[in-house]
Amino acid sequence: MVFHRSLPVQAMDVELLTVGNELLLGQTVNTNAAEIALALSSVGAVVARATTVADDTESIRDALRVALARSGFVITTGGLGPTRDDITKMAVADLFEVSLVRDHHYLETLRSRFEQMGHGPMPASNQTQADLPEGASALPNPLGTAPGIWMEGTIGTVVMLPGVPKEMRGLLANEVIPRVKQRSGDLVIQSKTLRTAGISESALADALDGVEEQIAPLTLAYLPSAEAGVDLRITAWRLPSAEAHERLASAVEVLKPMLGRHQYHGAGVAESLLSALRKNRLTIAIAESCTGGLVCHRLTEVPGCSDVFLGGVVAYANDVKENLLGVPAKIIERHGAVSVEVAQAMVLGAQQRFGSDTAIAVTGVAGPAGGTPEKPVGTVHIAARVADSTTHRAVVLPGDREDIRQRSALRALDLLRRALL
Amino acid sequence: MVFHRSLPVQAMDVELLTVGNELLLGQTVNTNAAEIALALSSVGAVVARATTVADDTESIRDALRVALARSGFVITTGGLGPTRDDITKMAVADLFEVSLVRDHHYLETLRSRFEQMGHGPMPASNQTQADLPEGASALPNPLGTAPGIWMEGTIGTVVMLPGVPKEMRGLLANEVIPRVKQRSGDLVIQSKTLRTAGISESALADALDGVEEQIAPLTLAYLPSAEAGVDLRITAWRLPSAEAHERLASAVEVLKPMLGRHQYHGAGVAESLLSALRKNRLTIAIAESCTGGLVCHRLTEVPGCSDVFLGGVVAYANDVKENLLGVPAKIIERHGAVSVEVAQAMVLGAQQRFGSDTAIAVTGVAGPAGGTPEKPVGTVHIAARVADSTTHRAVVLPGDREDIRQRSALRALDLLRRALL
Repeated sequence: MVFHRSLPVQAMDVELLTVGNELLLGQTVNTNAAEIALALSSVGAVVARATTVADDTESIRDALRVALARSGFVITTGGLGPTRDDITKMAVADLFEVSLVRDHHYLETLRSRFEQMGHGPMPASNQTQADLPEGASALPNPLGTAPGIWMEGTIGTVVMLPGVPKEMRGLLANEVIPRVKQRSGDLVIQSKTLRTAGISESALADALDGVEEQIAPLTLAYLPSAEAGVDLRITAWRLPSAEAHERLASAVEVLKPMLGRHQYHGAGVAESLLSALRKNRLTIAIAESCTGGLVCHRLTEVPGCSDVFLGGVVAYANDVKENLLGVPAKIIERHGAVSVEVAQAMVLGAQQRFGSDTAIAVTGVAGPAGGTPEKPVGTVHIAARVADSTTHRAVVLPGDREDIRQRSALRALDLLRRALL
Repeated sequence: MVFHRSLPVQAMDVELLTVGNELLLGQTVNTNAAEIALALSSVGAVVARATTVADDTESIRDALRVALARSGFVITTGGLGPTRDDITKMAVADLFEVSLVRDHHYLETLRSRFEQMGHGPMPASNQTQADLPEGASALPNPLGTAPGIWMEGTIGTVVMLPGVPKEMRGLLANEVIPRVKQRSGDLVIQSKTLRTAGISESALADALDGVEEQIAPLTLAYLPSAEAGVDLRITAWRLPSAEAHERLASAVEVLKPMLGRHQYHGAGVAESLLSALRKNRLTIAIAESCTGGLVCHRLTEVPGCSDVFLGGVVAYANDVKENLLGVPAKIIERHGAVSVEVAQAMVLGAQQRFGSDTAIAVTGVAGPAGGTPEKPVGTVHIAARVADSTTHRAVVLPGDREDIRQRSALRALDLLRRALL
């Protein structure tokens, strides 16, 4: 189980230091540590230890000192915001025995950003964000005002990142990982993810029986989520880069035919569907009830969706299904709002009202209330329409209200994706 | 910002040591640490530091040694399973200079559980789970085979818990917290959160200037998010339970008038708005462009929203704004789709088409493309309508596409919430 011992010398050890009272109080889960570790693994660097300390200069400095002594390379998050007294960089300056000096270039960058946003002049409290330990460089952070800071000295390297996950993430990907990659040599931990939708984890495991032996020493992990289906992660552990690449490619070839139409490509089912629509020069409109806007949201999350996505109707009340989508009142009366007939009428209505080539409709019982013995919570009817042909699917989805809504949206997008294959 | 220094002597410091390669590889997020910290806080114990090390006896022992030297009380998770070579308890035995001895009572308990489950005789590999460092006690774990272990000696106390969250949770609640409570006396750490929307973190900080001194020794933390606005968390640190309660209540009284209309109540702005609508017996409809379904999604996330939420139109294409919401084509031509005029026409259209009492409309440039010098990315027009009165607001929001969409949705919901005050 020892995993960072019997390694070639070029493997690079890193320690993480996450700073924040909210972490030690359990009010925030430390997702930053996991994200940084995952990114480092991908370039062959390994986190040997991760430490969390309070917003307290002395604790930060003490923890940094021993971490640097062990590994020589520490990445910190947190303690950089304007309301947090910038304690991390003070601790670093202290430890490296330098003072904080104002980076006038960065200060100007900050100032002009404030002006561009039209929020008036930059508050004085933001000025100290341009103060860096002497000898350090600022790493640009387009999403926030605190820069990342890279400090290198005789006692080692400290990379300071903000604690806000989104800001940390951008700096990690754009500034830190490329630099670490240069240092860490050729061994890599590399993963490849194949994405599936419309099939459960256990059904997928049955379909892939025996494949783990075939792809060894690579490993296979199932990562199910209500939002994205089941991802399959194939991982090559600390192999020379070329070998990892080659083995991953052949593992993908083994898996692909086993996955068939369940597999989709792209950042998500919405992306996959949008590019299929684009390729076929088709537009899309949505009619959704129980998903309450989520299907539209998934599509419009994707930048540039407007070339194929026309719009949608969130038809929560039955009146709205009738008035805005032209679902005949009789059909709702006879079959209920959650029925194949209503789903089909909704998808037709969306296509006609929006004048689109394709359409998706969803109606279901997301719960917690509204379930009946015949139509329990989780019952969802989905319809997809391409030109004059409608595909329908009825499912009973597990989970709570949020799960059911997420799964319904996923299934709906996936139904049209498959119809376009 | 020092938060565990000037404290009464009876306050109890705890350190956490989480063990697991999967944590250091970033494949698992360390939720255990947050859960333990939260539970400890509730009984007045504070996590002074949290460390994660690899599945490696030496690393565990080294980290334990320094943690015990600092705090005298360490809780570990992980490294107790049968496939993990029970390395944590070996490290503990090593450190306390005792050997592992078999707890025959626990062994019998284990054996009879295997028999009861009808899985046949207990595998030999499980026998070692009854081996404990000499002098330690087993803590019953009804959900798994590895017991929790409580070890106390002259160098301090180590409590070992399994890494599986469900098992850890049971042991924490039933075995650990009651014992810690006995030791830590009556002191508690207690927080109260006030929620705001429609005001930035720095504007809020300006508005609350000087308040931190007023509420001391309680502390104030700003927790901003694109989805929910800025939360203010007031925390009483290690005070007697009654005093904490009283001081928190008076701090809330100090803050409330300063927050005014910015403050909302409930799990989110959507909840707050829905209950205001419900109280006034008003229905709502949505017309959204750049938020692409997110405003509807926020409202329909809330169970039971259907009593006031009728539905919405996601009007992405200009044609849809005209055909489904009745926005005059001329207005779009003259002022552009992102304009006060279009927002006002959209909100009116939504109210009329859905026959609702109130409505919200959003149109903006979420980016990354579509910005112009006059209407840069982030420009958003929001309109809220109650009966025959329309309120409009124009903002330029920071962040990336996702941030802008989230902030737009929040601002839109908040605009109507304020209009109903």
